Amino acid sequence: MTHPPPTRDWTRAQLPPHATPAEPAEGVAGFSFYGGYAGVKKRARDDLALLLAAPGTRAAGVFTTNQVVAAPVTQSRARLAASDLVRAVIANSGNANACTGAQGDRDAAEMAAIAARALREAGHPCEEREVQVCSTGVIGAPLPVDKIAAHAPAAAAGLRAGGLEDFARAIMTTDTRPKARALSLELPASGAAQGGALRVRVAGASKGAGMIHPNMATMLAYVCTDAHVPAAALAPLWRRVCDKSFNAISIDGDTSTNDTALLLASGEALGAPPLTPAQLDALEEGLTCLARELALDILRDGEGVEHVLHLTVSGARSAAEARRVAETVALSPLVKTALNGKDPNWGRIIAAVGRSGVAVDPAALSLWIGDVAVYSRGAWQGAAAERAAHEVMVGAEYAARVDLGAGEGRFTLYGTDLSAEYVRINADYRS
Amino acid sequence: MTHPPPTRDWTRAQLPPHATPAEPAEGVAGFSFYGGYAGVKKRARDDLALLLAAPGTRAAGVFTTNQVVAAPVTQSRARLAASDLVRAVIANSGNANACTGAQGDRDAAEMAAIAARALREAGHPCEEREVQVCSTGVIGAPLPVDKIAAHAPAAAAGLRAGGLEDFARAIMTTDTRPKARALSLELPASGAAQGGALRVRVAGASKGAGMIHPNMATMLAYVCTDAHVPAAALAPLWRRVCDKSFNAISIDGDTSTNDTALLLASGEALGAPPLTPAQLDALEEGLTCLARELALDILRDGEGVEHVLHLTVSGARSAAEARRVAETVALSPLVKTALNGKDPNWGRIIAAVGRSGVAVDPAALSLWIGDVAVYSRGAWQGAAAERAAHEVMVGAEYAARVDLGAGEGRFTLYGTDLSAEYVRINADYRS
Repeated sequence: MTHPPPTRDWTRAQLPPHATPAEPAEGVAGFSFYGGYAGVKKRARDDLALLLAAPGTRAAGVFTTNQVVAAPVTQSRARLAASDLVRAVIANSGNANACTGAQGDRDAAEMAAIAARALREAGHPCEEREVQVCSTGVIGAPLPVDKIAAHAPAAAAGLRAGGLEDFARAIMTTDTRPKARALSLELPASGAAQGGALRVRVAGASKGAGMIHPNMATMLAYVCTDAHVPAAALAPLWRRVCDKSFNAISIDGDTSTNDTALLLASGEALGAPPLTPAQLDALEEGLTCLARELALDILRDGEGVEHVLHLTVSGARSAAEARRVAETVALSPLVKTALNGKDPNWGRIIAAVGRSGVAVDPAALSLWIGDVAVYSRGAWQGAAAERAAHEVMVGAEYAARVDLGAGEGRFTLYGTDLSAEYVRINADYRS
Repeated sequence: MTHPPPTRDWTRAQLPPHATPAEPAEGVAGFSFYGGYAGVKKRARDDLALLLAAPGTRAAGVFTTNQVVAAPVTQSRARLAASDLVRAVIANSGNANACTGAQGDRDAAEMAAIAARALREAGHPCEEREVQVCSTGVIGAPLPVDKIAAHAPAAAAGLRAGGLEDFARAIMTTDTRPKARALSLELPASGAAQGGALRVRVAGASKGAGMIHPNMATMLAYVCTDAHVPAAALAPLWRRVCDKSFNAISIDGDTSTNDTALLLASGEALGAPPLTPAQLDALEEGLTCLARELALDILRDGEGVEHVLHLTVSGARSAAEARRVAETVALSPLVKTALNGKDPNWGRIIAAVGRSGVAVDPAALSLWIGDVAVYSRGAWQGAAAERAAHEVMVGAEYAARVDLGAGEGRFTLYGTDLSAEYVRINADYRS
């Protein structure tokens, strides 16, 4: 098996022993995918994605927490709340169908109906209520539903088990490359079963590269598995996975109106036995790895991103406090510009910790960049340590840790630097 | 009277009728000032500032809320808590005496003792406990107290009633110009007095231009008045003024370890009658104008700042909620880059409102840039409105308003754009 970069490069992933990298094109039992050009985008770049799941596939979703929510998100969230049975996902890029008022609501509903109709006509029974709809791209402009309707039959006819990367390409906006990944997982043997490990597959696609106007480059993620996750376990499992992956990345702190992360599990539909608690734990660990890499792929492809930081805050009184400190540090423009300058500027980091709102003892604070201690229990570790830290920061992706010396709470947040290029991209006035 | 720009340009200040611009050099009864070069900075730029107040002058202070606090702030705050009688302020630029450990504590205490000794030797009785100490500049490096001690006699000998701008120049770090302003206020006649309005003076200096490493460009502000503010009214009045001025500006959301704003009132010491409640209100209004302009002067001189935004959030359920929304909008990198690009990007602003954590009704939101309505009660106002808003945004300083349509709560925050130049300045790695 070959592993061409960048999307199948797992060298950084620290995969657990039971996970093996796989080719997205190998697919996941119970799923087929399509990506193509429907004409939503002006330039002929793929803009319509379709996913078909086996009848009986269950799904869980994590949606934007922004109160200004685009019509497709509102409707998809409501459908998923009514029933977790999902037959299809239709997603377009090039138009976010956001801030489009009542017409936007009608268009989002029509898009679901278009997908269901096209799938039925292609021999796949599907109801509108079983369709998840996503849109990403320009906001404020009406969605060209007619173009989606015209292309839908071709999409339904073009579904392929190996089409995940086509799907990934069709949801891109300002992304420079499709983001698709897959893992093969060996779950521990079930005591009740006839022995032997259970092999399952997880695969997914993501998109998003910061928010750029007139696009709001929504974060979208779709992950599929052929495991049988018991229905009651699906949503809490996906929430935990997202909290460590898609909800643990930050380019600019802004939350788009369309952010969506879906997990679809076909195992029950395919007649597989439900996972045992030990198998569920192993699946969750593998899904977390997959989702974290798909999330990091977004940062690695972020607009104007030159460095990706894995920032761990440890020694907090709780994970929530660790997260709050990590967010304050990772979102500080002064810290982010220091990352851009490869500058081990502990003063800015310590000052950000100090204003995070979490009670800290300044004399207990320590900071490592890579493995280099630059600040230990309130004391600067000298110029040589700074120089060594600078060498770490030359790298495109590295870890840092702040220890608060107060407890066992820990959280890892994935952030980026802030470059002059980011400003240039985002300050560009459409005229 | 001439009003040379920029610091004495009050055209934007919308002064109330009872306030008249004055020359900082005209001074304030009961105060004298000094600024000169002691050798803390490597380059021969003024770095030692001294202020002497009449015996019996009372002061109020607002200090950084950062938990990582520099030694001079800790000591000045403690002295002010023990007694509001302040005889002198000594401030140096070029070294923040922050993250300097136990030696930093000793140096900050020594700096107060140096000032008291030099003033006594110059014929101004002064105790160490009556001295407020401030430092701003490089962090982590030991304060060269010997240089301050050597220059202190010259500083005490050089105090001048008209020296406020010298003082302002000596507290500069990365500021490009000194920031000093003065107003003459006509307070309403006291019923008890022999008729006629009461004329008082307010004058002050500020510094700060974003945080830049290895300097943490602390925000410092000193405001003097010859009014007799009753002792019990002083601290709450200054807190309210700061909340509308120095605590209502944001360049990058970072709070330095040394931020300090002091109000000193000499009226009681000079034997003036205490202000009546109506006079106190008029003084507070004038002080708020003065402090707001001194705060805006910091933004106008901010590193890489090309546009200053007066952002009002109205129609909130409370002023606190209005403030929270304003902070989320004004700190959003996407909003700030749009300001830099003169881009009336209502989508980014509305999205920032939506994720502020304050419950809002998206259909009730409106946005004005200058006087141009670009978004009204949930609806885009068209391309012509955007073009008109763009013309407003070409200006160096302008107002915008977001209305939440939910109540009477209102807050005005002063923010800036985010430029590629800001990133270049702050990403510069010292090597």
